Amino acid sequence: MKIAIAQINSTVGDLKGNYNKIIEYLQKAKESGANLVVFPELTITGYPPRDLLIKKSFIKKNKEILQQLVNNTNDIAIIVGFVDEVNGNLYNAAALIKDGNLIGIHHKIHLPNYDVFDEKRYFTAGKNTKIYELQDQKIGLTICEDIWIENGPVSALKNQGADLIINISASPYHASKDQIRRDIIVKQAKNNNISVVYCNLVGGQDDLIFDGRSYIFNKQGKLVHQSQSFVEELSFISDINTKPEIKITEHINNDIFQALVLGVRDYFRKNGFKNAIIGLSGGIDSALTAAIAVEALGKENVRGITMPSKFSSEGSVVDSLGLAENLGISCGVIPIKDIYDSYMKTLASQFKGTEFNVAEENIQARVRGNILMALSNKFGSLVLATGNKSELSVGYATLYGDMAGGMAVISDVLKMRVYELSRHINNIKGKEIIPESTITKPPSAELREDQKDSDSLPDYEILDPILKAYVEEDMSREEIISQGFSKEIVNTIIQLVDKNEYKRQQAALGLRITSRAFGQGRRMPITNKWRDK
Amino acid sequence: MKIAIAQINSTVGDLKGNYNKIIEYLQKAKESGANLVVFPELTITGYPPRDLLIKKSFIKKNKEILQQLVNNTNDIAIIVGFVDEVNGNLYNAAALIKDGNLIGIHHKIHLPNYDVFDEKRYFTAGKNTKIYELQDQKIGLTICEDIWIENGPVSALKNQGADLIINISASPYHASKDQIRRDIIVKQAKNNNISVVYCNLVGGQDDLIFDGRSYIFNKQGKLVHQSQSFVEELSFISDINTKPEIKITEHINNDIFQALVLGVRDYFRKNGFKNAIIGLSGGIDSALTAAIAVEALGKENVRGITMPSKFSSEGSVVDSLGLAENLGISCGVIPIKDIYDSYMKTLASQFKGTEFNVAEENIQARVRGNILMALSNKFGSLVLATGNKSELSVGYATLYGDMAGGMAVISDVLKMRVYELSRHINNIKGKEIIPESTITKPPSAELREDQKDSDSLPDYEILDPILKAYVEEDMSREEIISQGFSKEIVNTIIQLVDKNEYKRQQAALGLRITSRAFGQGRRMPITNKWRDK
Repeated sequence: MKIAIAQINSTVGDLKGNYNKIIEYLQKAKESGANLVVFPELTITGYPPRDLLIKKSFIKKNKEILQQLVNNTNDIAIIVGFVDEVNGNLYNAAALIKDGNLIGIHHKIHLPNYDVFDEKRYFTAGKNTKIYELQDQKIGLTICEDIWIENGPVSALKNQGADLIINISASPYHASKDQIRRDIIVKQAKNNNISVVYCNLVGGQDDLIFDGRSYIFNKQGKLVHQSQSFVEELSFISDINTKPEIKITEHINNDIFQALVLGVRDYFRKNGFKNAIIGLSGGIDSALTAAIAVEALGKENVRGITMPSKFSSEGSVVDSLGLAENLGISCGVIPIKDIYDSYMKTLASQFKGTEFNVAEENIQARVRGNILMALSNKFGSLVLATGNKSELSVGYATLYGDMAGGMAVISDVLKMRVYELSRHINNIKGKEIIPESTITKPPSAELREDQKDSDSLPDYEILDPILKAYVEEDMSREEIISQGFSKEIVNTIIQLVDKNEYKRQQAALGLRITSRAFGQGRRMPITNKWRDK
Repeated sequence: MKIAIAQINSTVGDLKGNYNKIIEYLQKAKESGANLVVFPELTITGYPPRDLLIKKSFIKKNKEILQQLVNNTNDIAIIVGFVDEVNGNLYNAAALIKDGNLIGIHHKIHLPNYDVFDEKRYFTAGKNTKIYELQDQKIGLTICEDIWIENGPVSALKNQGADLIINISASPYHASKDQIRRDIIVKQAKNNNISVVYCNLVGGQDDLIFDGRSYIFNKQGKLVHQSQSFVEELSFISDINTKPEIKITEHINNDIFQALVLGVRDYFRKNGFKNAIIGLSGGIDSALTAAIAVEALGKENVRGITMPSKFSSEGSVVDSLGLAENLGISCGVIPIKDIYDSYMKTLASQFKGTEFNVAEENIQARVRGNILMALSNKFGSLVLATGNKSELSVGYATLYGDMAGGMAVISDVLKMRVYELSRHINNIKGKEIIPESTITKPPSAELREDQKDSDSLPDYEILDPILKAYVEEDMSREEIISQGFSKEIVNTIIQLVDKNEYKRQQAALGLRITSRAFGQGRRMPITNKWRDK
């Protein structure tokens, strides 16, 4: 049997568009002589459809599309994801369709309801596994989480006589997730002595990035095929158990870079935007954001704006223009001094007798936010916010200022990783894209005289691992201190993270590239008197 | 047996504070000769603790607090909510403690995972019901959702011989929820011929408002006690089945008003804020917001700022000052003309050759947002955003402009209800609080010459019911049209609601007073090509 894996990039809610894409891949597969084509989880609706699943008209249309597919599947079999409805209950389902007939339906048995997943909010869990015979193969259908469970559906299917497991997934990317996924499937293949075809979704959907990277494992658990990461692909295999093993090397920085590029590209494409506008400060965060945007959208669709104030260093304009030149993008220079002065004049009587403080600092950041949003409103381009995860964690960012925008591209990237990614981009491009002076200068918000990040925050070499432990790994204060960090610093950082939750809940959508981003995967109360001590 | 209902206002994460409050109510109950005191769901942690439940140190501390309670419960029995942990699984639990002993633990059997609830994200479902004997009464313990299930835990407990059901709840308020809750419990009491003591949480927690209103029903399903709404209360009952029935009348506008007042008050109190600052436009939304803030925080803690532009009507300042005088609050006047002009000058070369459009409109709204935030940063007061639900639904609001703030007080209140609440406040205060001219003038954003809401939107008499149908009741386009609305208007409104999701996901926390607010109870994708047609 010749099997095709159709690793496609569906769009949430675009039932007609997804249908057309399925048909397109189906035709290609047929032309190449495939007997079976496998599509990702919830192919018809896109993943995750979230509260669209509450709309009856949405469920109805999804079933009509399935029927259309059944009617148009001739001389081939397909496995496609859709939302099934039985007695008023919804199921995350996989349909096996062959030659104009709906042969069978598998209901996902294990529904993830942790992290970014809410599947128990919508779906009823399936109960049964069943074998389908296709071209002398005994196929067991599973959906995503079903294959993550030891002694679960895969073992049940093996016991029922399956000789091939097919899994349709929508498993979102985070750094090094690939390895975790492969380890799980290797184990299932080996323990059950069964080969596995694993088809994963590819594409960006709001904060989530699906990396594709579909696999085929033989019954010894050896990887014999891996689809490309971060792109659509139609790949074929026959005689799984005779194919040679392939080896995978991880490139973590390149993966993150590709993930962010896809996340930006798909958000723009799927929401009908073409152009991005980015405030360039001369610092590394905005430089990295701009480089990602150029890779995603093309240099002709990205515009930089640098907005110096009286506190800006000479480098802020020079390095911004240098970056723009390296990237081949235009860069406007819009000094904010006059606007800032008019705020100061207007607020003079209110502010009388007070010291320069965070109020004056934030006015500058918000003037810049207002200018970028005005250009966005005038010319229809989307503002990309440039803050990194370290800043966002401790609240070292201005709400409605540098936090303003339609998407916060690197808001799940810790500062040390921002440096790594910047060097990586210069490396792969074989030339200086992000200016060396931008990489080597001490980080500063430049909102007051001679300000440096290190005035308010510990060095990023210390801050970042503490944030990783606290935010991404849910470690307690005691556990973090026991790793050798100063008690005082850990206390300060934890307190900053906790008390800045209100800012993050108004932040722009951020792309998730770690196991715990701020966003739907981390649901903290704002009103929260828990102090871990 | 004399039973006390301790309808307390706990705080999420404040384990020590909640413990102290439990002890305080326990003492009072003991002094009044009660044999048993009942506290609300998850008393020790507060509700909902959300991802705090992922922190091991949090769970551990919660169990230590429970042990402290056991040690300090003498000469009385208490039922208190906490998080139990058995073999690494968490349970939403109720402990029955008596005279220094932990007599029993009930694990919540039915875990809500819809609407604003995520309990399956954290908890394992309990399996068993059990009877406890106290003073010759056979008591069955249940937690919140357990009592909502027909032929569920209540029937099981009755069959096991229970003669009294105790339910500890954290059931959030929305308009008319009270009636729904009572209907459910009446049915359980009647069908099972059993009396019910229902203790509900009171207080504000971020977007959620818990209304208290604890009940006691006799075994005929007659209401014999109802605790007050929106305040803490310790109430007592003995001989439930001899007490006379009481009748309840619903006051929907007063309920919503009290709910919003409590939501604002608790957000400030629990987060350590004292003062609010509000941009007053002379319109009804900011007037209502200010009136609620004054009721919640006291007039001395609320400050208005009116920020006229060249497009502002004379009424904008006059009505703002009139409102401030009626409320007894101070009101600063800060014209934005100079700042706006400096933006126009700075952006002149960028905007050259373009027409006045939404860019110029939004600059004004964002200048106001920046001024309010600057005053907030300078003086430590919290900005209250003033947008209503009708605006937020269709995106008739400026991100980082009038949407800026720490809390959006009336963002779940449709415009027609804004009028009703305003008239209600004038009524109960027996004088004009919200100026009559504010109530009667045609609504306008005043961001361009002679602008009126009705230039861009259908009348609120038409808009509001369509929004209610689409947002709150998940009706399809066809269903809404079949109610008699114009197809064209329905299409336009649905499209506006869908395409403005990105704005709402950056909105300030809004208080929930309907069955479907924007917020954690409505989880829509931003990237969403579903068009219901």
